[in-house]
Amino acid sequence: MRTTTGWLAHGSTSTLHQVPILRRSLRRDDIAVRVDYCGVCHSDLHALRAPRDADAPALMPGHEFTGVVTETGPDVTRFRVGDSVAVGNIVDSCGVCAACTAGQENFCRDFPTLTYGGTDRHDGSTTLGAYSREYVLRDEFAYPLPAGLDPAAAAPLMCAGITVWEPLRALDVGPGTRVAVSGLGGLGHLAVKFAAALGAEVAVVSRSADRAAEAVRLGAHEVIVSTEPSQMAAARDRFDVLIDTIPVPHDLSPYLGLVAMDGTLSHLGHLGPITVETTDLLVGRKKLSSAGSGGRPATAAMLEFCAAHGITADIELLPSAQVADALDRLDRNDVRYRFVLDLSDLS
Amino acid sequence: MRTTTGWLAHGSTSTLHQVPILRRSLRRDDIAVRVDYCGVCHSDLHALRAPRDADAPALMPGHEFTGVVTETGPDVTRFRVGDSVAVGNIVDSCGVCAACTAGQENFCRDFPTLTYGGTDRHDGSTTLGAYSREYVLRDEFAYPLPAGLDPAAAAPLMCAGITVWEPLRALDVGPGTRVAVSGLGGLGHLAVKFAAALGAEVAVVSRSADRAAEAVRLGAHEVIVSTEPSQMAAARDRFDVLIDTIPVPHDLSPYLGLVAMDGTLSHLGHLGPITVETTDLLVGRKKLSSAGSGGRPATAAMLEFCAAHGITADIELLPSAQVADALDRLDRNDVRYRFVLDLSDLS
Repeated sequence: MRTTTGWLAHGSTSTLHQVPILRRSLRRDDIAVRVDYCGVCHSDLHALRAPRDADAPALMPGHEFTGVVTETGPDVTRFRVGDSVAVGNIVDSCGVCAACTAGQENFCRDFPTLTYGGTDRHDGSTTLGAYSREYVLRDEFAYPLPAGLDPAAAAPLMCAGITVWEPLRALDVGPGTRVAVSGLGGLGHLAVKFAAALGAEVAVVSRSADRAAEAVRLGAHEVIVSTEPSQMAAARDRFDVLIDTIPVPHDLSPYLGLVAMDGTLSHLGHLGPITVETTDLLVGRKKLSSAGSGGRPATAAMLEFCAAHGITADIELLPSAQVADALDRLDRNDVRYRFVLDLSDLS
Repeated sequence: MRTTTGWLAHGSTSTLHQVPILRRSLRRDDIAVRVDYCGVCHSDLHALRAPRDADAPALMPGHEFTGVVTETGPDVTRFRVGDSVAVGNIVDSCGVCAACTAGQENFCRDFPTLTYGGTDRHDGSTTLGAYSREYVLRDEFAYPLPAGLDPAAAAPLMCAGITVWEPLRALDVGPGTRVAVSGLGGLGHLAVKFAAALGAEVAVVSRSADRAAEAVRLGAHEVIVSTEPSQMAAARDRFDVLIDTIPVPHDLSPYLGLVAMDGTLSHLGHLGPITVETTDLLVGRKKLSSAGSGGRPATAAMLEFCAAHGITADIELLPSAQVADALDRLDRNDVRYRFVLDLSDLS
């Protein structure tokens, strides 16, 4: 086993403490990664604050990170020591089911191994995330970080980025597609950048006109203020795709109203039941979908696209010792647009 | 005005009485139709049994019918006296909005004029349906009934038929598409016939194996018994399209489980809120949609398709005087597969 340091919550608590932890010795197809930067995802907040039993496994969040390969197992051919890599929220899958064979390891029928809170397929241990100075994983689930992408600002691409990339690609967003993005946070700001770079006409739906300049700076062509009935009415039935990144339960009806005939509302970033009025789907033959994470080919394609278009997240970089502040501010939506922890303060 | 006879429910009551009623004198673009056959739709049952005020407009159901043109307005060029016609649940629309211009009058932004319980766009009266010996409507919303289609068995095509036809076509069902149909009633049995004739591989999802022979007779290639966990597990992720015609609220999760990656569950025949678990959509990037009725081009195309493939509904034909029995039996799901009223018992 290997020793490193990270931020861990014990039992039923939600407070993270800096502690030494063990990582497994490298298997033949493993790499060890020095974690330099790890994004702070809403999922981390949910995981920490969800009710857990006192005897639950310890929780170490962190599933969008970048770093440098420090060691490779004997069968690893894709990476060498010193390579820059990026890792997302999946670190293994069965590899043989229809989803895995199709390159959609995120839909693995045997369930993918999550980067934290998952169950290792070999030793049954609970995975600990990348709020940590080192991570060990199968090389197949690490991606070369393209040169030119800032490694801190690239970290959020690995969860927030791929989560918006997959539906945009699955829904064939490209030149001429009319895309609306609701919610301008970690997911939403990347959805705007991606959709604009894909050539779409992009609108941001926001509760306040205050965000207009920001939205335009990110690449949006217009802002629709959701609290202005006249603006919502004027935008009715206008968008082929609506990427809804509002991270709390909300009434979908006004947003489905913006979707064009045969268009799709893709609902991201909130896990739980959704209720929708049949007639909001029926009139205009609209579709509701949901997305999260992505498969390996799509993740690699997204990183290449980001490198070609100079896209990374807009981040606020904090020493990892400030993780509690980051989580509190994230909970208050006080972030433009993603916190990234600098793990170099851990030994 | 013109006088005819029909089955009417007054005020808040749900009992239909045979009464004389008035139809409007023909406008320049109107036709008068002698109603020969009218299907009994679940909507009729809902409309009659929904709470209504004592001073509510009288209700005469009936929105899928066939008959013969008896008179034409001076501007009518599409029909002549003696022509066989079919009419569905829409008898007018604004004609100028984006939906109407696209031939989707069922999504008219100004709301289509429904065949019963609608508001006439010219005189503001409440439309009375086709549980009646005569109906008067704009010629544009009547369709030539193709020769060779039995006029009684063709009547249900005009609501049940088009309601399943539109999603099948919108979802590109054709040779090789894997289609499942849940619920084998008025909508479901036509979905099976259409999907099979379109060349799809068709499965019926039924609560009981008793329906297997029936399903195969209708064109299905297999039956999946929803109460058999092993059958549902074996069918997981297998269908590109699932047409869900179960007419009451139900848990969508087992049905979404049958949908393949990037596939769609189209929910028909129940109006009201639907609740879905985000993860049931997310895992496999599945879509939920809803459909009902259809536009004029699709309705005309469906009738041509039915004529080419010899498709009509499987019906039980009753004299219109037995309408109360038909509604009661429909409510008990005691129908194979659609009741049709023979209006020739009305003078």
